Amino acid sequence: MAKYRIAVIPGDGIGKEVMPEGIRVLDTIAARFGIEFTWDHLDWSCDRYHSDGAMMPADGLDTIKGHDAIYLGAVGWPTVPDHVSLWELLIPIRRDFQQYVNLRPVRLFDGVPCPLAGRPEIDFWIVRENNEGEYSEIGGRLYAGTDAEMAVQQNVFTRRGVDRVMRYAFELAKSRPNKHLTSATKSNGIIHTMPFWDERFKVMGEAYPEVRTDQYHIDILTAHFVRNPSRFDVVVGSNLFGDILSDLGPAVTGTIGIAPSANINPERDFPSMFEPVHGSAPDIAGKGIANPIGQIWSGAMMLDHLGHPDAGRAIVKAIERVLTQPELLTPDMGGKATTAGLGKAVADAL
Amino acid sequence: MAKYRIAVIPGDGIGKEVMPEGIRVLDTIAARFGIEFTWDHLDWSCDRYHSDGAMMPADGLDTIKGHDAIYLGAVGWPTVPDHVSLWELLIPIRRDFQQYVNLRPVRLFDGVPCPLAGRPEIDFWIVRENNEGEYSEIGGRLYAGTDAEMAVQQNVFTRRGVDRVMRYAFELAKSRPNKHLTSATKSNGIIHTMPFWDERFKVMGEAYPEVRTDQYHIDILTAHFVRNPSRFDVVVGSNLFGDILSDLGPAVTGTIGIAPSANINPERDFPSMFEPVHGSAPDIAGKGIANPIGQIWSGAMMLDHLGHPDAGRAIVKAIERVLTQPELLTPDMGGKATTAGLGKAVADAL
Ligand SMILES: CC(C)[C@H](C(=O)O)[C@@H](O)C(=O)O
Ligand SMILES: CC(C)[C@H](C(=O)O)[C@@H](O)C(=O)O
Repeated sequence: MAKYRIAVIPGDGIGKEVMPEGIRVLDTIAARFGIEFTWDHLDWSCDRYHSDGAMMPADGLDTIKGHDAIYLGAVGWPTVPDHVSLWELLIPIRRDFQQYVNLRPVRLFDGVPCPLAGRPEIDFWIVRENNEGEYSEIGGRLYAGTDAEMAVQQNVFTRRGVDRVMRYAFELAKSRPNKHLTSATKSNGIIHTMPFWDERFKVMGEAYPEVRTDQYHIDILTAHFVRNPSRFDVVVGSNLFGDILSDLGPAVTGTIGIAPSANINPERDFPSMFEPVHGSAPDIAGKGIANPIGQIWSGAMMLDHLGHPDAGRAIVKAIERVLTQPELLTPDMGGKATTAGLGKAVADAL
Repeated sequence: MAKYRIAVIPGDGIGKEVMPEGIRVLDTIAARFGIEFTWDHLDWSCDRYHSDGAMMPADGLDTIKGHDAIYLGAVGWPTVPDHVSLWELLIPIRRDFQQYVNLRPVRLFDGVPCPLAGRPEIDFWIVRENNEGEYSEIGGRLYAGTDAEMAVQQNVFTRRGVDRVMRYAFELAKSRPNKHLTSATKSNGIIHTMPFWDERFKVMGEAYPEVRTDQYHIDILTAHFVRNPSRFDVVVGSNLFGDILSDLGPAVTGTIGIAPSANINPERDFPSMFEPVHGSAPDIAGKGIANPIGQIWSGAMMLDHLGHPDAGRAIVKAIERVLTQPELLTPDMGGKATTAGLGKAVADAL
């Protein structure tokens, strides 16, 4: 019996609604594959911030660093500034636990309405750098409150940081039938960091002669996501570019509600974290209609990471089957089902 | 007779092919509206770099600062690094001439195939900050060539720089029937400059109570461009976000080949510059099949700026009519016409 202790952080808004469905499906599959999950529920959230003045306890990261994985819903609420809710919870987990790969699939499933004419085939991965780059604490204000006010923000790209995420992306591309890796860049406009990114991409590529590479500036790359999404296999991007592409990709495949993500520490020195791409969605929170597929699919990615690819694949197959049945879907996909209804449907399909 | 001296920079690749069509159409309309253009042709380009070692003469900007406007094709070629071809020609013009507004329309025309299912109505403007922000010379490398290598890039947002482009965007929104302005931000991830951007947006909005405002993080905003493009009226973004959105927008409306742009110095202390959004397109250069509509429409924006909105509108109407005739279109729009054929068709339609 394989046993795993999982830190569960439902978070805010619809995070709290989709999490039980993720757990329902994981418990169902666990029974079939001889896996046992222990779920340690943590109330780290904006609610906690309102009652205790902190998103998580001061020793929060210490208490979960021995867990096998972290399963997260969504964090953030309009009553708490983002630089608190995200920079004191989500981002420290990604960084302190060296989850430098943010892996996100982009896939058009049968049954899901596609916003693109002609329903092209879409099935690729985005590998996003998750620890440095455009997201940094370095910077600040000068002459605040006066006409001369200015704000600066430092982007930081290190060879270690760039190389390790590119290595992951090349390995992933190498493992796929098409062996094609695309780099998102902007070396014509951003003259210090992006030419460096391109250089490292070129150097790394020399170690992977079997992988076909190309690169596009982020502006035209977003255009290609809409015009030729079938041409992509694996796309690697910086923290910001990967963030943009991994919302645009799911939008092109119909709904952001089903998109999962894995924040991976490939060396396994720390637990990795699995969370849907969507946020806490204050506009629909509390109605019980949020799409739980992003949370459930993130659970499949967690199983994969824990060494149970068969179990992960079984969940994805169940999702595939359920998505072809319009009456089982939540309103964002044109159906009338509830969050729990759709979660149960996936569990039943297993 | 209104007389204008225009600095003409065809530049590289298809820039040299579409420019004559822009001039053809402008000369045609000029005759009808009592306008006289003097075209000063400049060979500033990558070719010039190869023969003379510089993209433009050392006193280049001085020689054109008294012109009424600059009409540019496209700059850049694979044999010259971008930090030379762009940062020694295009970007100095935008900056030294304080062209801090980059204005780009996003419009779906009848007759142009749309990549979105259901052909939504699309007709909005992107106002891009064009002088500061993520594009800056500030930054560099440390420990180059070693494992400890890193590259940093400073983003700089000043109150003066942000306020002036926002004022332009609010004025534009106020002049439109829907009076709706959307701000592109990423204040949850980029913690110094983007919260500042949001603050200034809020402050500026107080002076425009008649303008309805909203804001989206750039990641989900790209998703909305695909899922709900009809909801936008005017969108204001930083240098990088505006750059991304103004390639994605035209892609959503069918082809980037028709998109124009105006680099505007609203105070008219310096000439403004008009150029298509597309680049020099080495892959199709020399074949005579590039789409000249982006260049021609940029000419219409130039007329508008010079105080001849009727003449500008007449060109846009001619473009509208021609686009509904598939046999007149270039290959990127599914037709078989040449660059010159399509340019002539627009001139004839006037
Ligand atoms: C060529 C490049 C520097 C430029 C930019 O990013 O500004 C282009 O993409 C544009 O949009 O005009
Ligand atoms: C919430 C926000 C900081 C986050 C990000 O930009 O990383 C989110 O958009 C994501 O993609 O996980």
